[in-house]
Amino acid sequence: MTLPPVSATTTPDPALAYRDDLIAAGLLIPTGVDGLYGRSALFESVVTGLDDAVTRMAAGDGAEVMRFPPLLTREAFIASGYLKGFPHLAGTVHSFCGNEAEHHRMLAAIDRGEDWSQHERPADVVLTPAACYPIYPVIAGRGKLPDQGALVDVFSYCFRHEPSVDPCRMQMFRMRENVRIGSAGHVQTFRDTWRGRILGFVERLALPGALDVANDPFFGRAGKLMAEGQRDQQLKFEILIPVTSESNPTACISLNYHITHFGEIWPLRMADGELPHSSCVAFGIERLTLALFRHHGFDPATWPAGVRAELWPSP
Amino acid sequence: MTLPPVSATTTPDPALAYRDDLIAAGLLIPTGVDGLYGRSALFESVVTGLDDAVTRMAAGDGAEVMRFPPLLTREAFIASGYLKGFPHLAGTVHSFCGNEAEHHRMLAAIDRGEDWSQHERPADVVLTPAACYPIYPVIAGRGKLPDQGALVDVFSYCFRHEPSVDPCRMQMFRMRENVRIGSAGHVQTFRDTWRGRILGFVERLALPGALDVANDPFFGRAGKLMAEGQRDQQLKFEILIPVTSESNPTACISLNYHITHFGEIWPLRMADGELPHSSCVAFGIERLTLALFRHHGFDPATWPAGVRAELWPSP
Repeated sequence: MTLPPVSATTTPDPALAYRDDLIAAGLLIPTGVDGLYGRSALFESVVTGLDDAVTRMAAGDGAEVMRFPPLLTREAFIASGYLKGFPHLAGTVHSFCGNEAEHHRMLAAIDRGEDWSQHERPADVVLTPAACYPIYPVIAGRGKLPDQGALVDVFSYCFRHEPSVDPCRMQMFRMRENVRIGSAGHVQTFRDTWRGRILGFVERLALPGALDVANDPFFGRAGKLMAEGQRDQQLKFEILIPVTSESNPTACISLNYHITHFGEIWPLRMADGELPHSSCVAFGIERLTLALFRHHGFDPATWPAGVRAELWPSP
Repeated sequence: MTLPPVSATTTPDPALAYRDDLIAAGLLIPTGVDGLYGRSALFESVVTGLDDAVTRMAAGDGAEVMRFPPLLTREAFIASGYLKGFPHLAGTVHSFCGNEAEHHRMLAAIDRGEDWSQHERPADVVLTPAACYPIYPVIAGRGKLPDQGALVDVFSYCFRHEPSVDPCRMQMFRMRENVRIGSAGHVQTFRDTWRGRILGFVERLALPGALDVANDPFFGRAGKLMAEGQRDQQLKFEILIPVTSESNPTACISLNYHITHFGEIWPLRMADGELPHSSCVAFGIERLTLALFRHHGFDPATWPAGVRAELWPSP
């Protein structure tokens, strides 16, 4: 027996509607895959404004700038434990390594519309899930940390396998981070400093953001317990801004405390041999851009003077 | 019978030596995988200088700026024919889509050091092999081209699966392109204009570059014939600059004529229904950066005044 199709819902999806508006305005360029879009020059001007504003906020901190392509080594990815907590979001890279005969077989499979993945092998690299992941093995590889610990500034495209019509949930998006690795005291100072900075930042951007305790989207039932533990210990705070929903606002900036998690993995050591703590502040650049377009309109030339001054100060 | 190991060659590999110099100077940050590196702030300042210089060269052309993350839809990738010509360079993305039981099996396979790729499925996306690939379906999706054709400015990280110790052969690197789609006449004018521009550019950068007919690295025996055809028709020119080898200089800029190849695939149509021609000029940003460091030294502050003026003109 075949059931009749469910009638299409009449409740409009505000996330889908906002995406369509962004596409109609030419700010996002659709590709045919949900969560993968091109960006226009105007969209990118806001991205650059946000990136530069974060740089100015952190000016004088003396962070070491590192810029990685959005790939991580497979070895570092496995060591990070990401596949334990977030297997559903990961993206690994596979490549064809065969000879000409195998090439013909792969092309024939593609022509027949078959799965052709058996003609590929796992490559040495995976897509970066968060901008800070490449830096821990780099810092660990330098030996013991200096007395003052380490402070690193990273910016990269990141991948999360979560096809969605919500433009705030892209499969590939940019994350700007500052990462502090050092004593519990160093990290506490970093968290306190950035907590104040990000609250001031969203206020100057005239965005209705609120700071709240949060948790990562850990996978499965065990993940639920991890998420609860993370909340109980107040390890993660997020600046939540309504973008496509008032009741379910979007996390646009996060402030994360890893305690000694990454120190144990790599391993990182303080000058005195102790395990370092670490913390990072992460700006979701596309989400902040979409929040600005939502709250101030699609034409940055008409945005409030204070917002424009924060993003594009006069030289 | 076991043969004795071949004695290590005593000829130093100049590409490996240059990579080690770049790492020692802190310009490149090693990850443990050949061809995947972080970049320092100084490295990135040259990247930005080159990117801005290309923008100034093309100022007034009226190109539409599109910026894509370094992913392409799987569908567009297959349609492009890339897997026919360059299967060995491609990188596709795979993701875990299972339940908790499958998650446990995947983690167990990883713990045992086994291949765990059977726990993943092909995702809808692949890594971008060249910056211009995402734009053809976008332009085709708009319908017939306007009378003047199209001109697009793209910039993205690109992936090629070719692990190498040569720093000029990275697995992930940036490519800035301008792409012209239009009549044979439009494309001829574009090629002539950019031929002059890129020759002037390398001269102002004081790099020993020469323009030469070239071919793409097509795969296998059939690919050899395709490469010969490409050379015979003079479809590809490259600016070759010695970086890690005098006898085997590096292609740092390429000027490519696709005739109607991409028009046939998508399909693209001129206002009068004819198949458009297309051409692109592609700047290998990392390769140009490495050529500048090779020829002018690791400290841009000491580079010739004309080179500095080209990259960082006074406002």
